[in-house]
Amino acid sequence: MKLSTIGQKMNRLTGVRSIMKDIKDTLQANKDVQYINLSAGNPLIIPDVDKIWRKHTNSILDTTFSDVIGRYGSSQGYEPLINAIVEFFNTTYNWGITNKNILVTSGSQSLYFIATNAFCGTDINSDNRHVLLPITPDYTGYGGVVVDSNMIVSNVPRIEKKEKHRFKYHVNFESLRINESVGAIILSRPSNPSGNIISKDELNKIIDAASSFKIPVLVDSAYASPFPNLVYTNMEHVWKENVIHCLSFSKAGLPGERIGIAIGHESYIEVMEAFQSNLNLHSSRFGQALVAETIISGDMDVLSKETIQPYYLEKKKILEDALDKEMPDIPWYLHDIEGGLFGWLWIENLPISDLELYDLLKKEGLLIVPGSSFFPSTDKSWVHSSECIRISLTASNEEILLAAKIISKTLVRIFNANE
Amino acid sequence: MKLSTIGQKMNRLTGVRSIMKDIKDTLQANKDVQYINLSAGNPLIIPDVDKIWRKHTNSILDTTFSDVIGRYGSSQGYEPLINAIVEFFNTTYNWGITNKNILVTSGSQSLYFIATNAFCGTDINSDNRHVLLPITPDYTGYGGVVVDSNMIVSNVPRIEKKEKHRFKYHVNFESLRINESVGAIILSRPSNPSGNIISKDELNKIIDAASSFKIPVLVDSAYASPFPNLVYTNMEHVWKENVIHCLSFSKAGLPGERIGIAIGHESYIEVMEAFQSNLNLHSSRFGQALVAETIISGDMDVLSKETIQPYYLEKKKILEDALDKEMPDIPWYLHDIEGGLFGWLWIENLPISDLELYDLLKKEGLLIVPGSSFFPSTDKSWVHSSECIRISLTASNEEILLAAKIISKTLVRIFNANE
Repeated sequence: MKLSTIGQKMNRLTGVRSIMKDIKDTLQANKDVQYINLSAGNPLIIPDVDKIWRKHTNSILDTTFSDVIGRYGSSQGYEPLINAIVEFFNTTYNWGITNKNILVTSGSQSLYFIATNAFCGTDINSDNRHVLLPITPDYTGYGGVVVDSNMIVSNVPRIEKKEKHRFKYHVNFESLRINESVGAIILSRPSNPSGNIISKDELNKIIDAASSFKIPVLVDSAYASPFPNLVYTNMEHVWKENVIHCLSFSKAGLPGERIGIAIGHESYIEVMEAFQSNLNLHSSRFGQALVAETIISGDMDVLSKETIQPYYLEKKKILEDALDKEMPDIPWYLHDIEGGLFGWLWIENLPISDLELYDLLKKEGLLIVPGSSFFPSTDKSWVHSSECIRISLTASNEEILLAAKIISKTLVRIFNANE
Repeated sequence: MKLSTIGQKMNRLTGVRSIMKDIKDTLQANKDVQYINLSAGNPLIIPDVDKIWRKHTNSILDTTFSDVIGRYGSSQGYEPLINAIVEFFNTTYNWGITNKNILVTSGSQSLYFIATNAFCGTDINSDNRHVLLPITPDYTGYGGVVVDSNMIVSNVPRIEKKEKHRFKYHVNFESLRINESVGAIILSRPSNPSGNIISKDELNKIIDAASSFKIPVLVDSAYASPFPNLVYTNMEHVWKENVIHCLSFSKAGLPGERIGIAIGHESYIEVMEAFQSNLNLHSSRFGQALVAETIISGDMDVLSKETIQPYYLEKKKILEDALDKEMPDIPWYLHDIEGGLFGWLWIENLPISDLELYDLLKKEGLLIVPGSSFFPSTDKSWVHSSECIRISLTASNEEILLAAKIISKTLVRIFNANE
């Protein structure tokens, strides 16, 4: 079988995807073992959230169902959903957007595929523009979406150690290079994996620097306010002409339906809509209708504020307390969980690599994600990139407590063996 | 804004897509005009079909709903759907396939995007392989999906004039070039737009020629048996090692949900699954669950045979009768409607172009699709390619009758003006 270079690139499982395959294989090969699985980005199914989705499915069955599933749609998206987003963002944030600023995609991954391949790569003048991640660690799906090879450039962060086993990343503007070689900038805020929310000032500085080169800045808001609102600190959005603000409904309980939304300048949206039309016509409409109903009814806002956010806020506290209680006296640091679905644990001077730690924890029945997956294009000699693990908050309280004990016990053994 | 070459290519609306945009604009600008719209590939919503989708939506709400929408899925597809396809095709056609031969995609368009870009284009040795359409006219979406430019090569057909204003296309093997410069072959069977079903012998000959160069042959079965079964003659499938058999559920009443299925050799499926994982993680799961339920229950088979096929068979007859009754004494030929959703009308020696005819019919309140859109990469000097129009069967009987009158009247005027 002969593959094109694009085919070969897309045939590779990059970053966290290859870990996820290993986890899937592990689970299938050991069906008798009860793993504690803190690897997943799969949100838990919260009964109160599930109830709302069911309620609106029934209301769609009573009204628009035949039309929703039985007709092709517009490549831009289902009109009631587009209207609902415009209305909500204008009312809540006063952004002054119109229908022309919205594109509904088949999930975030598809959104980043479209944007990076439209704006980055080789152009008609043979100029080459890359994707810039201004602060790693960051979501590695961004790496997988670019069909040209070697198109990701990332900028390592500045690390601030804080009191009591905590730390926080900041954008390292000393080393950040924003110029005409950049086609698009992407960052997740809150960050997957670190839980970091870069400050409004940092974000503004990136956007303004990008603006002079007309570079779009994609702000991945999959965990942000207003939906699903997995934010545990103050967070303000930034809306400017070169921002593409990206929403997802996966963490609000709808990962199976693949709904991503881009809010951006009309010129970006037009290009991405045409791309989507050629790529897959349009996103599935049932999920779009469901999201539209929950936003219009106000349920999505209430759920996010009163159910989803408090639910994960509790998980965050349980993980923090468990680590504070269980962890041994070694130089460990948990990143401030300012938002999102994960704890990000840094073991300074870890005697083994994060991948080896992943394997050892797996043997103890605990599945996490080794952190090096989240440092694409980072020089491997920077040891910090192989000293971290990502711990998902999508687990029962008991599992989180047990996980902290297993991590602690395993680290004690590793550090003792290396004394 | 700077676009990559891929971005520029995907920003273009190719073939029928640009006509569809013109139609959308026309409808919006003339909201007071009652157009007869025979342009669409949008299937009609058949009440008995709609009833079945509703029934299974309710049954999903009673069972798997929370899991279906609330969890990420496998990139290969929803397991019950994969199992249902394997079971059905093995029972019905004795293909001897397993789970590893199936991939569920976000609709057919996405399937062709993945396959053409994985198998065609420039490879690591700078060799370039194109997409071959062995018989035009054919679906022009195939053109839009290839990110490299000029990657479509098409082969014009041999025309057989038949009695009483009918004709049929055959594969022109004299001019067909299958060699190492071909990356993938695609054809629709039944054909969109012509309604042609190339014979089993013709198909076998293409597949065998492709096989010696290990070229995959994608057989677009969007209108074929078993679902939606829009077949009005005898039709046999061909299943060989280098065939990728492609299903769609759009014409069985589910276009809004974007469900495509590839059945092919494990080696193809693996590559396409990895590509999909990077492209959009997986297809939306609600639609997949819905299709799984209707297949497992047997409803899909019964609907296709007893409701959908007879419904469009009647439309086909109405169009044939209407044209036979209304058309003037000019050299017009309707392609044998052996399957599918369209009538394909050839006006030999049409004094104007198909695009001009499209415009004149639009002024009379009738929307059809000009045929030249379906001849990508065909030498424009071949006049046949601008002498055809596509007439959709997705309309009421009255609309089809009226359309025949309008076409006839318009052609009389054109031919008289040119005498």
